[in-house]
Formats: sequence, structure tokens, C-alpha cells
Amino acid sequence: MESLSSRMLTSVVGFAIISAVVWIGWWAMLPALLFVSVMGLYEYIRMLDRNDIDVRRVSLGVFAAALILASLPMWPQAPWPGGSWREAVMTVAVAYLLVIEVIRPGERPLERVVYSVFGLLYIPWLLGYFLMLRYSPDAERGLLYFALPLLATFAADIGAYFTGHFFGRRKLAPEVSPGKTVEGAVGGLLASFVIVLALTTLTGIWSPLEALLYSILVATASQLGDLSESLIKRALRTKDSGNSLPGHGGFLDRIDSLLFAVPATYLFLHISLFSQ
Amino acid sequence: MESLSSRMLTSVVGFAIISAVVWIGWWAMLPALLFVSVMGLYEYIRMLDRNDIDVRRVSLGVFAAALILASLPMWPQAPWPGGSWREAVMTVAVAYLLVIEVIRPGERPLERVVYSVFGLLYIPWLLGYFLMLRYSPDAERGLLYFALPLLATFAADIGAYFTGHFFGRRKLAPEVSPGKTVEGAVGGLLASFVIVLALTTLTGIWSPLEALLYSILVATASQLGDLSESLIKRALRTKDSGNSLPGHGGFLDRIDSLLFAVPATYLFLHISLFSQ
Repeated sequence: MESLSSRMLTSVVGFAIISAVVWIGWWAMLPALLFVSVMGLYEYIRMLDRNDIDVRRVSLGVFAAALILASLPMWPQAPWPGGSWREAVMTVAVAYLLVIEVIRPGERPLERVVYSVFGLLYIPWLLGYFLMLRYSPDAERGLLYFALPLLATFAADIGAYFTGHFFGRRKLAPEVSPGKTVEGAVGGLLASFVIVLALTTLTGIWSPLEALLYSILVATASQLGDLSESLIKRALRTKDSGNSLPGHGGFLDRIDSLLFAVPATYLFLHISLFSQ
Repeated sequence: MESLSSRMLTSVVGFAIISAVVWIGWWAMLPALLFVSVMGLYEYIRMLDRNDIDVRRVSLGVFAAALILASLPMWPQAPWPGGSWREAVMTVAVAYLLVIEVIRPGERPLERVVYSVFGLLYIPWLLGYFLMLRYSPDAERGLLYFALPLLATFAADIGAYFTGHFFGRRKLAPEVSPGKTVEGAVGGLLASFVIVLALTTLTGIWSPLEALLYSILVATASQLGDLSESLIKRALRTKDSGNSLPGHGGFLDRIDSLLFAVPATYLFLHISLFSQ
């Protein structure tokens, strides 16, 4: 169990660093996302290693970098209907990972391909949405839209911690994440609703109903992001909550909520723009 | 070993059916691709079964259908930079497959997720390119562009068979596909070059150099598509070359070359359009 002060400190420092990097824009986000992708994949590969599952590390690193680069919204729009650069990179990655096993066969080749493909989709593919959201629809409004999942996740984290600490009785998902309580989840949802309502009402972008719908979506997504990462760790029999960097905790542990909350915001935003 | 006449007949009938469906357009291609996706996934799941690897079948079917539908070029263009409907479906699929394991945990949950994700990318994701190529850039020229991989793969298949049959000496990839020879591969490449050169020169769309580059690409892609499918079968310890439909051979065996040749054509086409 982490102590209150260390848990608070990690949340506040993480929030401050991410806010600063996002505020600066793509030329700070690009190296940061490349770094987080590589570190996240490193932790993933380390977990696979413990289970004797092998992947092609160099190819994984190259395609991860290509996916992050392809997510930059400054590229000339792909001229084809229904396509995108990220999609092209993913297609080439799947074909390449299969072909390299044909050319230089190793042990359990399909296992290597499937765990590589999943690693690419779980880490750099989802991280790419951070760049896409930051510039949707432009650098100015994108900053406001990015503030939503960031503040909502931060508020949910803090709100869930305090509510769970003082009122927590019933366990939420005892098998996957023993520390979470139902009361904490409700407190987190309330805290994120308050901050989303304040931000979207002040800037006049959403009605209170839209703010409520979005709060439920983002609080759910960040909880499920957190639980999904716990699931991966549990499935790969890593019980300690990520100490790949001594004293700093794992990168995946720090970003798991945002890995789901940012894409969810991006899709919510564009579906709501469509319906207007 | 298949006999000459049955092998010829399969190639010719397959070529005729695919040509007719593609010529008619999306309303024939959509049900055909949904059918091939479901049959391909069925064969894939059957191979996984034999290896005691479980996947969520219903979810896989639903997301496969969604990927094919999202590949229809008639959808209003996604309004966001760098995004596409296919990409959104893939993101939702990855998140959903993880979340369902959190909510209803089963045995070896991560294994289920990674083999599901790969199945989606290998079959419906690649098949989606059939629709996208057919309408790139429009229904008329898209038909011509689709004729290229179809004719090239057909010519390569026939050319490789005859050259290999009469002149074949050296094995190409004895471990993966014992029937293939180096001479056959060269004959296939020559045959597809002749037909691509004829088609693109007559319609005036490409120079002979572009036709040569494309022939090398498409002949390589279709060979590698074929070998990749052999690799998957071998990795899943299925040695018989697909008899899921008695007397008809497996669907994956019939489409493996095109699964790589069509996306390769699509990407070649758009990269060459970009460079103009």
C-alpha cells in the first residue's frame, strides 16, 4: 500500500509534467511519447520475458516510433478514402512481422507475431491519440480538449482516493485490483463531473448534459484502462505494481488510465461533432 | 500434390468469381467480403482450437463485420486529422477485448486478447483493402487498379506452375512450402510482368519502369502472402493445406496471395500518386 503523501505527490507531479508537455505542443510531445512508448514496450517485453514469450525487439521499436510519427497531425492528409498513415504503418507492421518469421524462422513464430502486434496496438497506437487529440481540430481548441481527460482523470484519481480512504466499504474488483472500492469509484466520478462541468460551462463548449455524459465516459474509460493494465500484469504473472525504474514505479502504471481516457475523449469529441 | 487439371481449374474458377464480384462493385463485394471474413476466421479459430487457444468468437465476428463495413469508401470522411473509421473500430476492438476479460475473466485472458487482435488484423483488416482499392480514386479507375493485382497474381500462379513443372530444380523455401521452386518463382514474376506491362501500357497509366517495379512488388507480396499463411498453419500444426470445406480447400488457402497483393497495390498506388 502506498502512503497518502507519496500517492498524492506522484499524481500531482505526473499531472504537472504531462500538462507542461501538452501545453508546449508537438515538438515536446513527440520525444515524450517516443520515450514513453519505448519505456512502456520495455516493461511489456520484460513481463513477456518472465513468461518465456519472445518478440522481435528491434522491429517492435522501429514500428512503435513509426506509429507515433504517423500520428502527427501535420502530415499531408492521406489522399485515399478511409485511410490514414497510422493505418498504413499498422498494415506494413503486420505483414513485416509475418514475413520476417518466414525468412528467419525462430521458435514459436506465431506467438512472437501476435504478442508483437498486441504490444504495438496497446502502447504506441493508443499513445498516438495523445498527439491527435492535442491538435483536434487545431492547436488552440485542441489544448482545451486535451485538458478534459487530463483534469478528469486527475480529479477522479484524487476524488477516488479520498472518498475510498474515508468511506470505502465495498470492493470494486477484488480479483484484479484489491485496493479499489465502489465508494471510491463514485467519489472519483463526482469529482471528475464537477471539474468537467466547470471547464465546459466556463468555455461554453458543452451543455451540462454533455458534460455529464462525457464525465461518465471518461471516468469509466480511465477505470477500465487501469483495470486492463492490471489484467495484463496479472496474466503475465507480475504482481508488483511496476518498479521497472527503482523508486519511480512503472511507466505503464502511470499512464494506464490515460491510455484509455484520451482515445475515448477523441472518439467522443468527433462523434459529437458529427451529430451537430 | 494436387493434379495439374484440378489446380488449373481452382485458379481459373477463383479468378472468374472474384473478377465478377469486383466488377459488380460494393454491393456484391460487401456480402462476399463478410462471408470470406467469417469463413477465414472460422478456419483460424479451428486451427487455434487444435492448439487449445481460446478466443471470444462472437466478439470476433462482430468486430470483423464492423471492420469490413468501416472499409466502405462511401462513409462520410472522418473529420479528424490522421484518423479513419477502420482505425476507430480497431481501437474500440482492442479496448473492448481487454475490458471483457476484466469483467468476465476466463482462463489465460491475455492469450485470448492477442490471438483475437491478430485474427482481426490478418483477415478482415486486410480484406477491407479490397473495398478501398476498388474505389481508389473512383469506381471506374478503381476497377482498372483492382485488375492489376488480380491479373498479376493469377498470371504469377499459372506462370509459376508451368515453369516450376517443366524447369523446376531448386527449392525456394523447403521448410515452409516444399512445392515451390526458384524457377517457378522467376516464371511467375515474368508472367505477371508481361500482363501488367500490357495492361498499364494499353491504358497509358504507367511507364514500363513503373510496370516493372510494380510487378516485382506484387509478385513478391503474393509469394510472401502465400508463405505467411503457410507459416501460420505450420505454427498452429495444421499440415493439411486447408480442407475446411470438403473438396473445396480452405478459404485462407485460396485468398492468401491476394491478402498481401491487394494492400500492397493500394499502398504502391497511393505512394506513387503522392510522388507525382
